[in-house]
Amino acid sequence: MRETLFAVIPREEIEGRLARFQAALARAGLEGALIVQETDLVYLAGTGQSAHLLVPAEGAPTLLVRKTFERARAESPLERVELLSSLRELPGALASLGLEGGRLGLELDVLPAASYLGYARRLPGFELADCSALLRRIRSVKSGWEVEQIRRAAEMLSHVPEWMARHARAGMTELELAAELERELRVAGHQGPIRFRAFNNELFYGSVLAGPSAAVPGSTETPIVGPGANVAVSKGASHRPIGRGEPIVIDFAGAWEGYLADQTRTFSLGPLADRAWNERYDAAREIMRAVVEEARPGAAPSTLWDVAKAAAGDRQGFMGGVSFVGHGFGLEIDELPVLAPGFDEALEPGMVFALEPKFVLPGEGAVGIENSYLVVEEGVEQLTSAAEELIEL
Amino acid sequence: MRETLFAVIPREEIEGRLARFQAALARAGLEGALIVQETDLVYLAGTGQSAHLLVPAEGAPTLLVRKTFERARAESPLERVELLSSLRELPGALASLGLEGGRLGLELDVLPAASYLGYARRLPGFELADCSALLRRIRSVKSGWEVEQIRRAAEMLSHVPEWMARHARAGMTELELAAELERELRVAGHQGPIRFRAFNNELFYGSVLAGPSAAVPGSTETPIVGPGANVAVSKGASHRPIGRGEPIVIDFAGAWEGYLADQTRTFSLGPLADRAWNERYDAAREIMRAVVEEARPGAAPSTLWDVAKAAAGDRQGFMGGVSFVGHGFGLEIDELPVLAPGFDEALEPGMVFALEPKFVLPGEGAVGIENSYLVVEEGVEQLTSAAEELIEL
Repeated sequence: MRETLFAVIPREEIEGRLARFQAALARAGLEGALIVQETDLVYLAGTGQSAHLLVPAEGAPTLLVRKTFERARAESPLERVELLSSLRELPGALASLGLEGGRLGLELDVLPAASYLGYARRLPGFELADCSALLRRIRSVKSGWEVEQIRRAAEMLSHVPEWMARHARAGMTELELAAELERELRVAGHQGPIRFRAFNNELFYGSVLAGPSAAVPGSTETPIVGPGANVAVSKGASHRPIGRGEPIVIDFAGAWEGYLADQTRTFSLGPLADRAWNERYDAAREIMRAVVEEARPGAAPSTLWDVAKAAAGDRQGFMGGVSFVGHGFGLEIDELPVLAPGFDEALEPGMVFALEPKFVLPGEGAVGIENSYLVVEEGVEQLTSAAEELIEL
Repeated sequence: MRETLFAVIPREEIEGRLARFQAALARAGLEGALIVQETDLVYLAGTGQSAHLLVPAEGAPTLLVRKTFERARAESPLERVELLSSLRELPGALASLGLEGGRLGLELDVLPAASYLGYARRLPGFELADCSALLRRIRSVKSGWEVEQIRRAAEMLSHVPEWMARHARAGMTELELAAELERELRVAGHQGPIRFRAFNNELFYGSVLAGPSAAVPGSTETPIVGPGANVAVSKGASHRPIGRGEPIVIDFAGAWEGYLADQTRTFSLGPLADRAWNERYDAAREIMRAVVEEARPGAAPSTLWDVAKAAAGDRQGFMGGVSFVGHGFGLEIDELPVLAPGFDEALEPGMVFALEPKFVLPGEGAVGIENSYLVVEEGVEQLTSAAEELIEL
């Protein structure tokens, strides 16, 4: 249980984030930004209440709150928290911060098109530009305070092997096992919702998949997707009963004060029927070791993908249908850096990423391991701590 | 447990939906539509795989799948399911359906602005228009098959009073009680994710709130919001221990085959300390009866809001911070009709809505009741069936 009911984000956190964001806006030639997405508001203003955060590239930002004003004022450490009764007030509010034209940043990757067109109509003097890449870049480097929350989220996941020993039984469905494990996470203080920034993606705690279920592909941008409960929610645990001797992949996101951590472990009820799974699991651990050895400040995420690919060699099914071996996380599960081709910007201290080498064989199943890491001066520090061997129950 | 692992949506369902949507496109002067949101794809194509559904106002639609093709082909009853390797193929694919210009419908309320701008660049011959209102209107009228799924979702919620008797104890936190109730829902086959169409809104099963927590306002467009687990997920159950004699509001969405149902019941551990809550709860039931009496085909949702307001009279705290007393639901929790001012389009048979008269007193707490209803020829049929009195445990 948490110590207080309403913990807020420390003022110096918010001030540091805003300073970095404002510097990035200035460097990119943006006059300012208009932030409206809930998670970005939490990050920059310390509150997820329905609001517009006006950030000039220089000077004090203003939070204009639509709902709920008193709560936003209690949660946000910003000096200027004001009521916005109508969007008609927006141009005036921007002008009062010196923003009367030029390039204005919006979160175009998440902002609905209808809202975008509405802003374009109301703000004809501005050129609306995408500022999400800038903000995501800043969010990828965690502060000491953020790392503390992530450690708590990771700690939550250290109990997965004991929970599996307590609950997993042959013949129960994946959904029934998920029910028990999700309850354990929730009792440990899990917030529930896990935010996925990418359109049409969602994650419900993670996934509990066994045997061929773990190899059912789908639309989500993850190596393992699964059948899901039905055709509308076609990802994650299914109605399929879990059998003895098949690999069971438990991929969960812990969560603390909004911050996530990501971990996968592989289990089986009795020995694996096909010993080839054990070899694949060993290969996944070997890939993990190879990447960890190369991961340090200055390393490009794309080269870590190359290292993983090389270590996987010609083994079948590496990473299923996706071309990445790791991803950043924080308030959202799909943050930067991405350990994938094309992501060449060097790692730096304070970045965190989940590294998840997995093998997926269509029609058969999957195995894999995933740990969360913090980039430190001398390399990476592992944040998730559950036992790493393939666990036979 | 479900009978089969991969139930698909019947072909005649999809055909009927597409025919209604195409007729609506033609009436609105749209040449066709390009559908990409996962839930809308499930509704119109029978699969939530990552795809573009091209719907000409006349003629056969084509589903262009990016990920995962085989799964989309197995799930969708459409004749034309093809692979889309690149968005560059889109103009050609539209042209092959006779779509070479004119007004093209997109889901502008949910499509990210960056994607919208991408389509605008790739499809310069088209005028991009919002077709979400048309589609949401069609989705608001449920088929017999859809009502069957909703009945199963509602049936799941009939056990809430027995689950509360089993688990609710003074001194446990709202999150701890939520963990137990959510587990019961999941064991009963709940899919997990509940989709909220509106930007920046989300719902995690529903909410478990007691005493003053239930009166903590927030950004979500619901009468009761709650503190949430932390400042990032600032809605729903909190770390606050539940006390004896305070109202406990349990608002849950059941789910079956993607379809939802919505129900709220109010409980207390021992008698309510303040008998005024009992009177407010009786008033909520009275408002419910008054609205149900007027609800029938031909009635405008806005007049049902008027009926509720009149029945609430000058009692304090009716509906907390929102101006609606009911909402449609289906694959999403915020569908049409909305029982609110400005929603004047008449109810018709096959529509479903949740009616949720509630009283919220800031700093004190909340009580309320919610049932899901189906509009039938002679009025409405109640779908949720848990005992309706305020339940003392």
